[in-house]
Amino acid sequence: MNDESVGIVETKYLNIEEPVLLDSGKALNNVTVAYETYGELNKEKSNAILICHALTGDAHAAGWHEGDKKPGWWEIVIGPGKAIDTERYFVICSNVLGGCKGTTGPSSINPQTGKEYGLEFPVITIRDMVNVQKKLVEYFNITQLYAIIGGSMGGMQVLEWMVSYPKMMKKAMPIATAAMSYPQQIAFNAVGRQSIFSDPNWNGGNYYHLDEIPKNGLSLARMIAHITYLSDESMDIKFGRGLQDKDEISYDFTVDFQVESYLKHQGETFVKRFDANSYLYITKAVDLFDLSLNGSLIDGFKNVEAKVEVLSVDSDWLYPTEQSTEILTALNANDVDASFSEIKSNYGHDAFLLEKGQLNFILSKFLTSNVVTDVMKEVVVTIKSDADVREAANLMLDKQVTHIPVVSDDNELTGIVTSWDLSKSIALNTNLLKDIMTTNVKYCYATDSIDVVARMMSEHDISSLPVVDEDMKVLGIITTDQISHLLS
Amino acid sequence: MNDESVGIVETKYLNIEEPVLLDSGKALNNVTVAYETYGELNKEKSNAILICHALTGDAHAAGWHEGDKKPGWWEIVIGPGKAIDTERYFVICSNVLGGCKGTTGPSSINPQTGKEYGLEFPVITIRDMVNVQKKLVEYFNITQLYAIIGGSMGGMQVLEWMVSYPKMMKKAMPIATAAMSYPQQIAFNAVGRQSIFSDPNWNGGNYYHLDEIPKNGLSLARMIAHITYLSDESMDIKFGRGLQDKDEISYDFTVDFQVESYLKHQGETFVKRFDANSYLYITKAVDLFDLSLNGSLIDGFKNVEAKVEVLSVDSDWLYPTEQSTEILTALNANDVDASFSEIKSNYGHDAFLLEKGQLNFILSKFLTSNVVTDVMKEVVVTIKSDADVREAANLMLDKQVTHIPVVSDDNELTGIVTSWDLSKSIALNTNLLKDIMTTNVKYCYATDSIDVVARMMSEHDISSLPVVDEDMKVLGIITTDQISHLLS
Repeated sequence: MNDESVGIVETKYLNIEEPVLLDSGKALNNVTVAYETYGELNKEKSNAILICHALTGDAHAAGWHEGDKKPGWWEIVIGPGKAIDTERYFVICSNVLGGCKGTTGPSSINPQTGKEYGLEFPVITIRDMVNVQKKLVEYFNITQLYAIIGGSMGGMQVLEWMVSYPKMMKKAMPIATAAMSYPQQIAFNAVGRQSIFSDPNWNGGNYYHLDEIPKNGLSLARMIAHITYLSDESMDIKFGRGLQDKDEISYDFTVDFQVESYLKHQGETFVKRFDANSYLYITKAVDLFDLSLNGSLIDGFKNVEAKVEVLSVDSDWLYPTEQSTEILTALNANDVDASFSEIKSNYGHDAFLLEKGQLNFILSKFLTSNVVTDVMKEVVVTIKSDADVREAANLMLDKQVTHIPVVSDDNELTGIVTSWDLSKSIALNTNLLKDIMTTNVKYCYATDSIDVVARMMSEHDISSLPVVDEDMKVLGIITTDQISHLLS
Repeated sequence: MNDESVGIVETKYLNIEEPVLLDSGKALNNVTVAYETYGELNKEKSNAILICHALTGDAHAAGWHEGDKKPGWWEIVIGPGKAIDTERYFVICSNVLGGCKGTTGPSSINPQTGKEYGLEFPVITIRDMVNVQKKLVEYFNITQLYAIIGGSMGGMQVLEWMVSYPKMMKKAMPIATAAMSYPQQIAFNAVGRQSIFSDPNWNGGNYYHLDEIPKNGLSLARMIAHITYLSDESMDIKFGRGLQDKDEISYDFTVDFQVESYLKHQGETFVKRFDANSYLYITKAVDLFDLSLNGSLIDGFKNVEAKVEVLSVDSDWLYPTEQSTEILTALNANDVDASFSEIKSNYGHDAFLLEKGQLNFILSKFLTSNVVTDVMKEVVVTIKSDADVREAANLMLDKQVTHIPVVSDDNELTGIVTSWDLSKSIALNTNLLKDIMTTNVKYCYATDSIDVVARMMSEHDISSLPVVDEDMKVLGIITTDQISHLLS
């Protein structure tokens, strides 16, 4: 275990009371979501980051389960002082719908039959996965996530969130992914499914109570997929034509090369941790994924509001960089605040799980709030300047705020009134807001640097500052609490 | 059937009397080679081109088998007037050792047991395949092939020929191939084999008399491999996300996308024409292929003498261009006359079977003999100038030549003596060669253009011309017969 880890963690479970409606038109009852969280949710519930896992991942993104030899799957970027800093952010990761790591999937018990679903489980989509994640986010009473981040199929979930719930995140980072499954990707998934179907032990999906599980088929599916996660260069560096446990080729069909042995091992260990039916459902969800609308990705992204960074890996041939720049282009066409970075790596697709240095740098730069808009509260209580003091007092009590921007009939900022001003009104014996409000009011713009604004607030001993646009219209308010929390 | 086809052809069979010794140390008895030939072998046996087929190809490279709906696999480049012009060249193509298309392989009868070999068949190598091809070439009494050409695994055979029998070809063109199998290529082959091993109907290779053959496993292997033969771009153009026989996705595990249906079809038709055990042996031979010597490809290619053109496909990710330029670099380092071309195509690896225009252009340019060295006869009879006329006459009779270059003691060209000169000696009543030989002799260099040389020979009415190096040493002889045959 290392110093920067979140340490020992546990997977928790949320039972969703209401039926989950699916894209297929069907519904699932008694859905359970397995999830983990790291860090603390702040009072404003504004520091939550949702992490979305890839095809065969799980809720255990960071830290250690008691007794485990390996940490969570994204330990390299999640933890105190890392890019996804658990001393600053509240990190949530849940197992996807259809999975086999605690969230309801085909190996779960169908409440209607009392037996495992098997192929009775409905075909699900990436959007269905996201809808279940949304229930979890709502369970935490979070109305807007600070960020959603994920790679590969996790990146598809990020994109789906951006499109389906555009107001529910400030930032989004889809990594090593695509806005739709392309035929080569579908082809590899289809062959993987075929290898499961072809295994007699699969038995039409009913194998949970049999002596044998379809391990040959699932293992083959994993071997095929695993090739696509690596680059030819990384395989060359890692294996070359090295022989496995022999000095000379043996002219038979035992394993000759290290790469064969490695793949076989990947297949064999995978079947111990994954359910064949889950593999069918999840790869199918990936194949069905397509965010284009009427054949246009620009149309598909037209409602996106998040600040987005698209990230790809130069040696990834499964989700090549072109498919990331396609996302970027469609976002740009919609005037979304979108940027793009490319990880330089010879690891291929798997680089998003491995390139610690580059990932921490890019994630950290993207997540660090450096302009006012990243931390300001957007829903802001204002009061007209012709209002009276009693009105202001009631508003403060009602909305639990200590600072209220005062605006003209045109909604332009004209001053600010604080609880201290109100107490002043008693001494001055006035009921008129304009007698006590501060008219020489400080303000800032949404695009101002947090550093600069924080310095100004500190110099003038201000704890709350209105954020305005160029016409002096109030856009939001920023408090030292928000700043100190995020710059801590 | 089209005008430029060789028309109706038949596969023939050669039985190799002596045992074929294999790289493994084992030997195979009673080996049969299935082959086809197109065009006529010339008198000098200098116009033979050997075509080497890929993984699942066969001897039927061109023309039509009686009643067939499709021509041979390389019909686009082989035929009258095409690049591999059957009016000019004698084209040979044979099924590889280990195959299932007429040449001895695991589905053949083992003469020792009277039953199919199955896994009793010895593991073979690309060199073993080439050695069997060599028996066929020798059967035609061909001592030097004009060219050896092949793509993919066929390209490996070309490279093996160049290295193992450097004097047995004038030209060689390895296409879309590599000088060794790299780990990603091995990985795909290994997974293909695994899918056959995993099929219960494979039954340890003994399925020839059973009701079921391992069609699921073989079909899967083919589906996996087929993905690697196409580029993502070609799949995109061909299929996109088009649905198969439905207007909407059906939220079940039936085939949704055209690409799935296509791959399934590829798998299903493949099992009707190919033997699962052959697939094991041939992919294993490919995996074992490695022409490097002590880890160096430069060392591996040190004996190559052929004029080589290395050809790759820009969108081929199974045998990417880098692996072709690696071959080129190693050849260049050995001062081999080697050049390189790249087919521009979005077809991926399969482009070597499809890009008719580019292939015909590149092949034709490469095959057309345009310098003297390409057509000259290298074994040349010479005579010393102090010899007598009787000696010359005997030599002409013995070697069946009409022109003998006359050389000094240092082997420098000093003249030429022809049968016409000899008849002159009778009139002049002299027995001294120097009295009758032509001393004002015309000659050419090995690197001279055939066109220029042909024009000179025509102008001076010369039918036979010595080819010399810069020191006037005789390298060979070129005749109008050779030129007219190759420029026809």
